[in-house]
Amino acid sequence: MAINLIIPAQDAIHPIPGIRIGTAEAGIRKAGRRDLTVLLLDEGASVAGVFTRNRFRAAPVQVCEAHLAAGAGIRALVINTGNANAGTGEPGLRAALDTCRALAGRLGVAPEQILPFSTGVILEPLPVDRLIAGLPAALDDARPDHWFEAAHSIMTTDTQPKIHSARIELGGIPVSITGISKGAGMIRPNMATMLGFLGTDAGLPPALLRTLATRIADQSFNRITVDGDTSTNDSFILIATGASGAHIESEQDPRFAALAEALTAAARDLAQKIVRDAEGATKFMTIRVEQAASTDEALKVAYAIAHSPLVKTAFYASDPNLGRILAAIGYAGIDDLDVSKLTLWLGDVRVASQGGRDPAYREEDGQRVMAESEILVRVALGRGEVADTVYTCDFSHEYVSINADYRS
Amino acid sequence: MAINLIIPAQDAIHPIPGIRIGTAEAGIRKAGRRDLTVLLLDEGASVAGVFTRNRFRAAPVQVCEAHLAAGAGIRALVINTGNANAGTGEPGLRAALDTCRALAGRLGVAPEQILPFSTGVILEPLPVDRLIAGLPAALDDARPDHWFEAAHSIMTTDTQPKIHSARIELGGIPVSITGISKGAGMIRPNMATMLGFLGTDAGLPPALLRTLATRIADQSFNRITVDGDTSTNDSFILIATGASGAHIESEQDPRFAALAEALTAAARDLAQKIVRDAEGATKFMTIRVEQAASTDEALKVAYAIAHSPLVKTAFYASDPNLGRILAAIGYAGIDDLDVSKLTLWLGDVRVASQGGRDPAYREEDGQRVMAESEILVRVALGRGEVADTVYTCDFSHEYVSINADYRS
Repeated sequence: MAINLIIPAQDAIHPIPGIRIGTAEAGIRKAGRRDLTVLLLDEGASVAGVFTRNRFRAAPVQVCEAHLAAGAGIRALVINTGNANAGTGEPGLRAALDTCRALAGRLGVAPEQILPFSTGVILEPLPVDRLIAGLPAALDDARPDHWFEAAHSIMTTDTQPKIHSARIELGGIPVSITGISKGAGMIRPNMATMLGFLGTDAGLPPALLRTLATRIADQSFNRITVDGDTSTNDSFILIATGASGAHIESEQDPRFAALAEALTAAARDLAQKIVRDAEGATKFMTIRVEQAASTDEALKVAYAIAHSPLVKTAFYASDPNLGRILAAIGYAGIDDLDVSKLTLWLGDVRVASQGGRDPAYREEDGQRVMAESEILVRVALGRGEVADTVYTCDFSHEYVSINADYRS
Repeated sequence: MAINLIIPAQDAIHPIPGIRIGTAEAGIRKAGRRDLTVLLLDEGASVAGVFTRNRFRAAPVQVCEAHLAAGAGIRALVINTGNANAGTGEPGLRAALDTCRALAGRLGVAPEQILPFSTGVILEPLPVDRLIAGLPAALDDARPDHWFEAAHSIMTTDTQPKIHSARIELGGIPVSITGISKGAGMIRPNMATMLGFLGTDAGLPPALLRTLATRIADQSFNRITVDGDTSTNDSFILIATGASGAHIESEQDPRFAALAEALTAAARDLAQKIVRDAEGATKFMTIRVEQAASTDEALKVAYAIAHSPLVKTAFYASDPNLGRILAAIGYAGIDDLDVSKLTLWLGDVRVASQGGRDPAYREEDGQRVMAESEILVRVALGRGEVADTVYTCDFSHEYVSINADYRS
């Protein structure tokens, strides 16, 4: 069902020296299913995070932010599926802290050195006893080459594991980049029921890594939307172990740009994979808005198109319904938009110009583009020089079926 | 399919002295279907309008605004279905003006005294010759008691005609109020592919009628949403013929409040009927947000709930999925929302308090409310004293089917 979602071969997934991964069946989600994952970090790794802006932030998100702020050096991540530990109040917070304390005890580190993550049902108490009871098996399982197993273990309604791995050279030193993500619904920037973990054995100081994590999120996980619903648990974590020996101390280091670009490409691929595997999706759409006066207005237009149920159902039907796209642009909230300066393309076909259908446009050209499974919608606003891009998918019967059945 | 949509009996629909209505088959929409409607107004009627804020405003909307501003006294409205005359550029504007000129010529009035309305497919040229050729038949058909026929004739994907009629007394003088509306998808405030025409034989000066029309729209047509898509053609027209002899010159007249209340109730019913007949809808939801600091934030929360595909599919499934409602409140855009002060009710059942599930809440109570076809979702934010209400519906397989098939 997923749209052109590439799963790398096991031998193309590069371990990250300094990170070991273990998974286990803790019985939180359902029987016979690995639902508990730990990432163990060697001492000295830098870790940065970007989290949901939903005001109902789940307990683990609150604990993550506190533990990252404590600055004690993160030594492990623990992730459960099957329960989001969100909307669970004080008991939920205690459950997240108990999880950290239990794992810290086994590792001989402080609880503040653990980051907890949960994804699954909201408003149900986390079965923390089962989670803690599962930790020894997950720790026993810890190996550097378990990224593939982790990508499986963090899945909820995902139909496919999401992994990206690459190897680059930084000033002659080979560096590995490997990451995993999950998410299929309740997906919109800032962020989604989305977890993303990206590691590298390059070395970066914590402050620089924090800047980089935000910048990367704004070009990847914060540019995808499935249904406009921002979840309570979204987290993107960037880890730099430094084990490769390639240490970058500042943005001025000529190797910084190359590393940033490779990490951004990895995060973008992991984010796009979430859209490719979105609930019920049959088409992957790239919405690019050009000639905007600001990033804010480029995104307003892109999200108006990406969230319109009428646009999304038309793409599902492979119907080049230009009127619905133009209507969405018109209500995006740019009060002084001059529609006569607007141009719209579907793929390489110019379909609208000067506020109406392009004189040269033929319906069969639009139909040819709409028949594809990957479609570029490009809008030029004629207002400025800013461009931005959002990734989304269509809206199908299957989406309704999944979300009318699944208690998330 | 429509949810508790009441169609008044023919003899309960009160004609409005000073308004005559005719319908005809002009062959714009499909064969054997009345698709052309005229409302003829006696000299001296006041007319006010509220129109879409979509930047792609259709040609007839632009002409309506210009003709109302001209102040020559409106003498007729002409409405076609089957074609929205939107995104049609200069030729579309000319077609709308030609329509006005043709009808004005037959009535012996000026073109500026005509208001044109179109609803249907976007981006297709209006078959203006067929429209004009249909005018004589529509004029021949004009009678005071043709509101029911007009409610049918303006339908597009509507499954039911939408009519409201009432009779009140203003200082001893009986006054009639009758209106019709249409719309089923691309529905969200400001406004929707929605047409609403409301007439009374009370008399009001034009300036006071304009103020009243805006106030009414903000409590009715601007408080409904089906899919969040604001159309290019939405229009609400308020007509006061004065034929009853009850003339109100200012807001200070003690009869004004009574008339305003009756007209608002009529408009609210006509607006709610659009939601009741919304594409694929199986449930009618009233989203009431209380204790907000401002109208803006009350509406932000109400629309976040009303537009969430996850909330709407949960209602379709009759699933009291509190997590999805709380998540929507959390991402509504109130940055300093303190979730611990929030209370949520489904119908009369308090389901969440202090940021989590209410301790006394039992799932079967939530399920009992969700099984109803009319559901009140009530949120208290604990921030202030402002309340506002939005009306919406659920999101079904049928919505996807309709919008994947219909070229609107």
